[in-house]
Amino acid sequence: MTQLNDYKEIAAKKVALRDAQLKKEWLVPEADLPPKNIKDVLNFPEESGYLSASEIEITNADARTIVEKIKAKEWTSVEVTKAFCHRASIAHQLTNCLTEVFFDEALETAAVLDELYRETGKLQGPLHGLPISLKDCFNLKGKASSIGIVGYAFSPEGGMPEDAVLATILKDLGAVFYVKTNIPTAMMTGESFNNLWGRTLNPFNRDLTAGGSSGGEAALSALKGSPLSVGTDIGGSIRIPAAFQNIYGLRPSFGRFPTFGCRPGLAGFESVVSVNGPMARSIDALLLYSQAVIGAEPWLQDPRAIEIPWRSIELPTKLTFAVLWDDGICKPHPPILRGLQETVDKLKAAGHEVIEWDPRLHLKLLTLAGALFTSDGGNRIKGLVGLTGEPLLEALLGLTNAAEISTSKLWELQLERNIVARDYLLQFVGTASQTSSGRPIDGILLPAAPCAGAPHEKFKYVGYTVAYNVLDYTSATFPVTRADSSIDIADKDYIARNPTEKEAWDSYDAEQNHGGAVSIQLVGKRLEEEKVLAMLKVIAKVVDYKQ
Amino acid sequence: MTQLNDYKEIAAKKVALRDAQLKKEWLVPEADLPPKNIKDVLNFPEESGYLSASEIEITNADARTIVEKIKAKEWTSVEVTKAFCHRASIAHQLTNCLTEVFFDEALETAAVLDELYRETGKLQGPLHGLPISLKDCFNLKGKASSIGIVGYAFSPEGGMPEDAVLATILKDLGAVFYVKTNIPTAMMTGESFNNLWGRTLNPFNRDLTAGGSSGGEAALSALKGSPLSVGTDIGGSIRIPAAFQNIYGLRPSFGRFPTFGCRPGLAGFESVVSVNGPMARSIDALLLYSQAVIGAEPWLQDPRAIEIPWRSIELPTKLTFAVLWDDGICKPHPPILRGLQETVDKLKAAGHEVIEWDPRLHLKLLTLAGALFTSDGGNRIKGLVGLTGEPLLEALLGLTNAAEISTSKLWELQLERNIVARDYLLQFVGTASQTSSGRPIDGILLPAAPCAGAPHEKFKYVGYTVAYNVLDYTSATFPVTRADSSIDIADKDYIARNPTEKEAWDSYDAEQNHGGAVSIQLVGKRLEEEKVLAMLKVIAKVVDYKQ
Repeated sequence: MTQLNDYKEIAAKKVALRDAQLKKEWLVPEADLPPKNIKDVLNFPEESGYLSASEIEITNADARTIVEKIKAKEWTSVEVTKAFCHRASIAHQLTNCLTEVFFDEALETAAVLDELYRETGKLQGPLHGLPISLKDCFNLKGKASSIGIVGYAFSPEGGMPEDAVLATILKDLGAVFYVKTNIPTAMMTGESFNNLWGRTLNPFNRDLTAGGSSGGEAALSALKGSPLSVGTDIGGSIRIPAAFQNIYGLRPSFGRFPTFGCRPGLAGFESVVSVNGPMARSIDALLLYSQAVIGAEPWLQDPRAIEIPWRSIELPTKLTFAVLWDDGICKPHPPILRGLQETVDKLKAAGHEVIEWDPRLHLKLLTLAGALFTSDGGNRIKGLVGLTGEPLLEALLGLTNAAEISTSKLWELQLERNIVARDYLLQFVGTASQTSSGRPIDGILLPAAPCAGAPHEKFKYVGYTVAYNVLDYTSATFPVTRADSSIDIADKDYIARNPTEKEAWDSYDAEQNHGGAVSIQLVGKRLEEEKVLAMLKVIAKVVDYKQ
Repeated sequence: MTQLNDYKEIAAKKVALRDAQLKKEWLVPEADLPPKNIKDVLNFPEESGYLSASEIEITNADARTIVEKIKAKEWTSVEVTKAFCHRASIAHQLTNCLTEVFFDEALETAAVLDELYRETGKLQGPLHGLPISLKDCFNLKGKASSIGIVGYAFSPEGGMPEDAVLATILKDLGAVFYVKTNIPTAMMTGESFNNLWGRTLNPFNRDLTAGGSSGGEAALSALKGSPLSVGTDIGGSIRIPAAFQNIYGLRPSFGRFPTFGCRPGLAGFESVVSVNGPMARSIDALLLYSQAVIGAEPWLQDPRAIEIPWRSIELPTKLTFAVLWDDGICKPHPPILRGLQETVDKLKAAGHEVIEWDPRLHLKLLTLAGALFTSDGGNRIKGLVGLTGEPLLEALLGLTNAAEISTSKLWELQLERNIVARDYLLQFVGTASQTSSGRPIDGILLPAAPCAGAPHEKFKYVGYTVAYNVLDYTSATFPVTRADSSIDIADKDYIARNPTEKEAWDSYDAEQNHGGAVSIQLVGKRLEEEKVLAMLKVIAKVVDYKQ
């Protein structure tokens, strides 16, 4: 693309190519789209009149139901794929959530799977015929992984040379890929905005950010344009957008799911590890995905995957949680505290035990995260935006203004991280002395973010999630309620304890935040994916949130 | 120790304190020790006349037998401990293998365990009463972990503030600690020599190095001064000394055994991970140890330990190995090639299959290892020797002469490492197309080092082991034979392909190397500890080496 000198030209060309892939018959005419002042567009696709009853039925179905209906020959993969392509197109019109679009290829794949099933009577695998949407960073052969970097829009020429290991595995399991989704520049901020694709909006309230970095996935999923999403998480990138869109998101510990062959934001950075995991409107979809991917033995393809098969888990009837109300750095906004309180109350009412979690190690974790993420002085990010000279977003200045540290200093930080991880583990295991069962807590309940979504460019504080990236603990988010301007009144007398908190509290306005998604985070120890999902099911039943 | 300005003074004081812990009744009078020209001292302890028949019987027993005899009340832990203290003292006189010596404490611990058993009829755990020797780097509360650094001889004052996690676990399982053992400066060369404790000799041939960095453990074990040794390995530090002393050594993958609370040579360095594992004269001892430690759930104490319980393993009747004769960088010396050939021949004769391993990725692995180990420009090592101004050993100049690299460059190297790890995994799994079973190989057989021990200060090439530290593959060594000057004739016409190989071949002299230990390395994939030990049993039976 040497003839395009201006980053805007490159971006425009790329966007035009993407738009050309959107089929006219699946788009709502401009005039029939909700006007900009309509903030909550969650129900628009269904109410628009542009989706058929069958398309609505299919796209409202859970991932497992879809596979079962295909197996039962009630639906074909082509039908299912068409329905999701259609609804994803509308979701994109509402939120700008898609990057790579390849509906024709998807329909071909679906047709091949249908044919295979017709001919052999056998399914390709446990995800046979199921459309799965992927965050932009998952390499697919022949397609770009531009990760919000204009210089990557057409690089490498001809697209990626091979599929990510995860994509290979999902294909082998029968998945149908049809779209990739939007993210922040290099996936390194908490809002899905970049100079290539622009901004993804939150369908709960389009004045709010979709969050990031897996924001496109979450917006698409909430609008039921995807039955199963795959995101990545290095600081909260699955949990924040999942929480901001009230879907379920699982941040597994490193090694459970294969990561090889994704285009990273900070290539080679390992002091805090990036992982990928599923996001969906149902826990069952997360379970279906996790069992299928791990059942495919990713450790035979990814050198860093860990050979732990999917384990059966038996939870105690009475669970014990610790609740963290406030990490001591940024007190959550009223809707989040209400959501957490409701969760705790309902769990107690259901017979579970809840003790308090002392957040004494969280400042240390946050400080370490900051130092580790900026350890290259932002050189990697600068290099990426420098490919075309696109402007650096303000939200990235924290990364790029840092001074690069020496390897010796990095080693010191890694040592510190291990020490705080040890202290955190001892605190977790040590709760045995405070529970009525004499066992340690099963998990920690805390906010996923201090806010129920935030106005665009106002979401900054990722401390509630990044703590568990530093620790590599299994964590997940679950929806509880929505922000309500009539009850989630800001405490005007609250005196912020630091500039970060002041900024977060200054940006809270009950009216502006109305309708925002309220999700809570559940944290288990490292490599406890089975247990966290099992607990999630218990909690979700008690919380009883309706998607 | 501010009054001691000279590093030699500090070292002398420390050595004197150690010597004061050696009990006169357990030392062989100077005059009765073998003269310096006696190279092979393996049988001296037994033939010296200074060990009682009972002490010989106890110290010749396998670790599991010892625990069983204690359980059967045939032996007490005090008797057993005394026997090993005695034999360890003689081993030390022959090879200079001990650093911290605390026989009195050991006997007290043993007495407490005996008393517990007498009173309750219950054993403390699966290692009840068993003496276990530890490499110097394992922190024990109140004792130094000087790791061959003079400046650490008395620092921190009063010794380490707490036990390493592994030590805590072993104690809980019933182990009796009685000695720590010698290593190279900061454990960062392949020979156990440092300015604090001096040099550990190889009991097979005292003109040869004991290897390193767990050289003290291996010399002690070979002389039966310890039934179960614990070493660490970041570049071959378990496997090299195990191989040079013809004992079994297991380098597990990172996360199986707890590492928290060891004093590292390169603190905070994680691009290649240091692990610890057992070394002993019997595979059964390695199994006893591994099952016991993992059974203690180290992941509840060490934040980086992985929750994989000890798994039962069923091997196919016919195993398939790939053999790597020469890594393309440093061709093994005649005794090693003969040992490897004998192993392959015997395995084939026993019905197993052996294919060839293409070492095409080994140069890349070696280059990466070099770049990663020196990424801090040797600052850490310089800081350690700088504590007292002790001279830097020549063998460490490779580390300290490198320039420190930037964090950005380190990230690039880590990325390269992941790519070669992926290629190696695909090569391993891809052998399925070459085996008669259609399954991938079960393991790789190759040298642990290019030599059967080396003259002091002549052991340099760690490529055969460090490759698997970069990959974090489970690997182990097993004894095959001993070097024999009458048959292991140097090929005078061999033209070295590079300076490293020239140096290694120039240092080979069949006479000088006579009697050196010949061990072979077995490599499985990552986190295959159970499988590697199970294969080791099959191989050992076929090879039939007598300790």
